[in-house]
Amino acid sequence: MKSEYEVIIIGGGPAGLTAGLYTARGRLSSLLVERGMLGEQIANIVQLENYPGFPEGIDGFELGQLMHRQATRFGLETLMADATGVKLMGEKKVVTTTAGEFIAKGVIIATGTIRRKLGIRGEEEFTGKGVSYCATCDAPFFTQKPVAIVGGDNAAVTEALHLAKFASKVTLIHRRDQLRISRVLKEKVSAEPKIEMLRNTAVDEIAGTAVVSQLKLHNVTNDETSALGVAGVFISIGLRPNTDFIKGVLSPDEAGQIVTNEKMETAVPGIFAAGDVRSNSAKQAITAAGDGATAAIYAERFLGG
Amino acid sequence: MKSEYEVIIIGGGPAGLTAGLYTARGRLSSLLVERGMLGEQIANIVQLENYPGFPEGIDGFELGQLMHRQATRFGLETLMADATGVKLMGEKKVVTTTAGEFIAKGVIIATGTIRRKLGIRGEEEFTGKGVSYCATCDAPFFTQKPVAIVGGDNAAVTEALHLAKFASKVTLIHRRDQLRISRVLKEKVSAEPKIEMLRNTAVDEIAGTAVVSQLKLHNVTNDETSALGVAGVFISIGLRPNTDFIKGVLSPDEAGQIVTNEKMETAVPGIFAAGDVRSNSAKQAITAAGDGATAAIYAERFLGG
Repeated sequence: MKSEYEVIIIGGGPAGLTAGLYTARGRLSSLLVERGMLGEQIANIVQLENYPGFPEGIDGFELGQLMHRQATRFGLETLMADATGVKLMGEKKVVTTTAGEFIAKGVIIATGTIRRKLGIRGEEEFTGKGVSYCATCDAPFFTQKPVAIVGGDNAAVTEALHLAKFASKVTLIHRRDQLRISRVLKEKVSAEPKIEMLRNTAVDEIAGTAVVSQLKLHNVTNDETSALGVAGVFISIGLRPNTDFIKGVLSPDEAGQIVTNEKMETAVPGIFAAGDVRSNSAKQAITAAGDGATAAIYAERFLGG
Repeated sequence: MKSEYEVIIIGGGPAGLTAGLYTARGRLSSLLVERGMLGEQIANIVQLENYPGFPEGIDGFELGQLMHRQATRFGLETLMADATGVKLMGEKKVVTTTAGEFIAKGVIIATGTIRRKLGIRGEEEFTGKGVSYCATCDAPFFTQKPVAIVGGDNAAVTEALHLAKFASKVTLIHRRDQLRISRVLKEKVSAEPKIEMLRNTAVDEIAGTAVVSQLKLHNVTNDETSALGVAGVFISIGLRPNTDFIKGVLSPDEAGQIVTNEKMETAVPGIFAAGDVRSNSAKQAITAAGDGATAAIYAERFLGG
């Protein structure tokens, strides 16, 4: 491991791994910094059905490993550590990590976004076994089955409408009295007979045996408890992009995401962002991978050639 | 085959196939129109090394087939025909093809870009056997070997600089006396000892046995002929996006490409563009696939849910 590289990539999900494949294959000395598990969010997906090229689906953990092996073959180096800060030093950038400081002229931020969790019993245990944070990814697994979705903003209602195309019934569970959604979505959700609203309601526990079978609820206005039988529960209560460490050099947007243009360039020359961490990402493995390739190509041009 | 769908996708390369995977899996009735070979440009690539998920590389034809099988599994229908026009009919779009008219509310244009060819002897014959139209894709195959690149604009010189990281020598062959490039690139190319210029020169023939071994050249000012030994020749003389059929409803940019925003939306609501055909595409299989997923996700939202 050297102390200086041409490009440092922070984050080892599909965006970071693809960026690393492209920079390494493009003969830029490249270091990828990953704090947890290679593949990141996809590493927990048992059956990834919408990454093109795998007709029968692929285990997300395996796909992360394949991407890493491919990038490593072309010379990508990997450091298992937590990136804690980025600072500027003239044209160069210093990336601080829990394993020391590293210097590069180009930095690609691909640290992703954590989907906010409810923090209740059963949530962790049943993730991938009925608990999901992505309707686009997992709705088809609940065809003709009853599901619930927890949340009350435009994103949650958009996911509810998507789920209604598959599930036998969709219960939209919201803590408050009113949804905070656009009028267009309000009309659409009222017109969808499969969607039922449960307002003023909080989820206390996700229960089941091998997979989710029931939600334990309580009404926040009168404290009455109840149970709802479901095969799955989608949690859509917001996102937390991993951008705290970058705040010294970049200002994330209101949602905490990094603003880029189509070339994945940020406000600082030589710093790029790719994947779920950037604003307006479609937040899919394949779109993140595409972003990573784009960031790498423009990073190479930035570095000269 | 029906006459009306929720989404029609024009073009069956990585962008169109991924869009079809997402719309079909999202339960939108979807028709993909392809005029030639599924996979389109990638179908001719023997060894695709930079599509993440295939550490040893994959045959591009095979990848196209895999993507198509995956989308078909979720209900994508495919029509082998040439799209000849798109017109608006209220909120709906009518897609004219050589196999009849089809109607949809959402249309995704993924017709790609044809790399301009020299039209000389040996070019077709040696494509994939030393003749390449993409330095980012194929430079590593020419490590420590002499190559030529034909062209004289910023794109060609950027590719020459990339090639110089791999090849033993890069001869930049240009028909005119001067390159039409930026000052920054001019400085970079002068500073690169591996790059040699051959101005006022045209390529008459690409010759070899199993693979390319020689270019036959002539000087356009004095008509002297010569031969240049190379292992590969990269052709970078411009792009021709497949957008003629869309001109009734959309105005392509100066380069003939379709302008989109980050959601792949064009100027016409309900018409999206994805992949190489859109302006500012990074023109890689993986970025095209990412675009296709993004277009599909926003097409679904446009169609309501």
